[in-house]
Amino acid sequence: MPLDQVDTPALIVDLDAFEANLETMAAFGKKHGVNLRPHAKTHKCAVVGQKQVAKGAIGLCTQKVSEAEAMVQGGIADVYVSNEVMGPRKLERLAALAREAKLSLCVDHPDQIAQASAAAVKFKSELGCRVEINTGGNRCGVEPGEPAVDLAKRIAKAPGLRFEGLQAYFGRAQHIEDWAERKTQSLEGIDKAKRTQEALAKVGLACTYIGGAGTGTYEWEGSTGVYNELQVGSYLFMDVGYHKVLDAKGKPMSEFRQSLFVYSTVMSRPASNRAVLDAGVKACSVDAGPPRLWGEDDVDYVRGGDEHCSLVYKNPNRVPALGDKVKLVPGHCDPTVNMYDWYVGVRGGRVESLWPIVARGALL
Amino acid sequence: MPLDQVDTPALIVDLDAFEANLETMAAFGKKHGVNLRPHAKTHKCAVVGQKQVAKGAIGLCTQKVSEAEAMVQGGIADVYVSNEVMGPRKLERLAALAREAKLSLCVDHPDQIAQASAAAVKFKSELGCRVEINTGGNRCGVEPGEPAVDLAKRIAKAPGLRFEGLQAYFGRAQHIEDWAERKTQSLEGIDKAKRTQEALAKVGLACTYIGGAGTGTYEWEGSTGVYNELQVGSYLFMDVGYHKVLDAKGKPMSEFRQSLFVYSTVMSRPASNRAVLDAGVKACSVDAGPPRLWGEDDVDYVRGGDEHCSLVYKNPNRVPALGDKVKLVPGHCDPTVNMYDWYVGVRGGRVESLWPIVARGALL
Repeated sequence: MPLDQVDTPALIVDLDAFEANLETMAAFGKKHGVNLRPHAKTHKCAVVGQKQVAKGAIGLCTQKVSEAEAMVQGGIADVYVSNEVMGPRKLERLAALAREAKLSLCVDHPDQIAQASAAAVKFKSELGCRVEINTGGNRCGVEPGEPAVDLAKRIAKAPGLRFEGLQAYFGRAQHIEDWAERKTQSLEGIDKAKRTQEALAKVGLACTYIGGAGTGTYEWEGSTGVYNELQVGSYLFMDVGYHKVLDAKGKPMSEFRQSLFVYSTVMSRPASNRAVLDAGVKACSVDAGPPRLWGEDDVDYVRGGDEHCSLVYKNPNRVPALGDKVKLVPGHCDPTVNMYDWYVGVRGGRVESLWPIVARGALL
Repeated sequence: MPLDQVDTPALIVDLDAFEANLETMAAFGKKHGVNLRPHAKTHKCAVVGQKQVAKGAIGLCTQKVSEAEAMVQGGIADVYVSNEVMGPRKLERLAALAREAKLSLCVDHPDQIAQASAAAVKFKSELGCRVEINTGGNRCGVEPGEPAVDLAKRIAKAPGLRFEGLQAYFGRAQHIEDWAERKTQSLEGIDKAKRTQEALAKVGLACTYIGGAGTGTYEWEGSTGVYNELQVGSYLFMDVGYHKVLDAKGKPMSEFRQSLFVYSTVMSRPASNRAVLDAGVKACSVDAGPPRLWGEDDVDYVRGGDEHCSLVYKNPNRVPALGDKVKLVPGHCDPTVNMYDWYVGVRGGRVESLWPIVARGALL
């Protein structure tokens, strides 16, 4: 089927760009001797996860237990929930899942350790357990050093748990646009992980994994010899937010290509300089800023509510016709993906694949 | 099941508040002799739609053909797609559906009329057709008066279509916070509908329906004698955005109660004044501003990405404990609903119903 026959709004993936991104990150990992455990929170798709594993990834991350279930059901053998998991309901699901695959999770409080241990014992399984440290983002995580060592000791003693290492992701640093400032903050976060690793070594606790990193900072976590696991997600797809993140030369980072688009139809042409599209905030997330039109710079995006947006052109001769289809670059890839049930894979202007987004809406 | 046993994040509906809202709007319609055709774009749930029809609504609106399919399949006999529909794929789905229920749609261009007519003829069905006018929002719609009359004449002549009237919704006016300014703009929009109705009458085209209105402006469209159909949606649930909309006394509008909540768990307590919840932008939409904590004023909401948010308390004694569950009022109800598969209906602290959100993600 030719792309222009696809009804809209649709979430399309440029397969050439997608495969190039997959390859670029895999090559980076091999070059620097660092494992990839890409984040399935971005793609929520077992088909995509399988492709990452086929390129050498040691497994996947998820943020939710229900995402982990979807990935294990989709054939992924090693899944790490890189997030705190509270309450026996979720922990028992995770402990049950750990009978079928290698499962681990992250903690920042003794109560979480006690609950996870109880669930693993109840289900006669084993859960890997990592301590999250606050690298500077002030979200979850204990402070580096002694507080982390204290939790690690508790994990090491807890029945049903194996101590795996540290979670040290610096979310807030990913979108610092200036390269030097992003580097400075990333290195500060990396140093916190290093000091904590050393404190753990002093009490005989080795870190199998020191993991973190995102698409904005992976070059430092991946090359300074402290981290051995990169949990990158957005590199596969890219979005307007990451196109604002600059490299050392002050240019937008260019190693990854835009592969994800919202395909949309001009549903109204109410003025000579304006086209209304059938994609609003239910089709293209605006949580981190607006989407932009692909392949055309001289056009302004105007919010139009849940089911519409407008494109306002400086040159009225460029305005697409009623019924024309256009590609939008999502402002933020992850929440956009979470609103769709399928990726439409496209190559050379033709549909080549449909991949189900099996963990769409997986919140638990 | 007690509410506190519900795993999180979950979308919960306070059934007492929900039923009061349903009743309040139904009573307004009866008092003013104006029909209700509530908007299913808000709730996307046939169970809720059935309740609206049981209270006297003449049918439902949707914004998408796929939403209309979900509502007809759920037993709604009269559905109006209050939006332009482009392309034979969608129009043929709508024409096929029109064999099973009364269906109508809205247009603002002759090409849409030709396409809708062709689809209705092909499927031997009939589609109601209304002309959308631009009431001031500058989104879709032709200008009031002659341009609308021109389209209405085309509809009246087109095989398979029946001319139904006008679509005159003023989206941008809904959230004007000041009452007097909101009233002024609403009345200007209403006047445009009235003038267009009069121009249509002069050429012998009667409007069966003149519809529009939202929760912010329904009091004027519902009481000035021009509109005969209110397409309100958010009144059922309410959200932070509508709590900022003021009444004539400068107080937040109070006729509708907050009935929709995102139920969330404290998953981390990393600092004495701060709790991290398991609900980020994938659980509670931020497109129209942040959510807020229900029942507590002295607390700041801090964005935490896709799967987290933080509550920062001025009084550390008020911070909930790790594992506690809290209720968030969504910033914007519609896109929040669109991320969930179920409503959990709650009364007196106990779960009473589970309603499937059958049109969740219905984008086509």
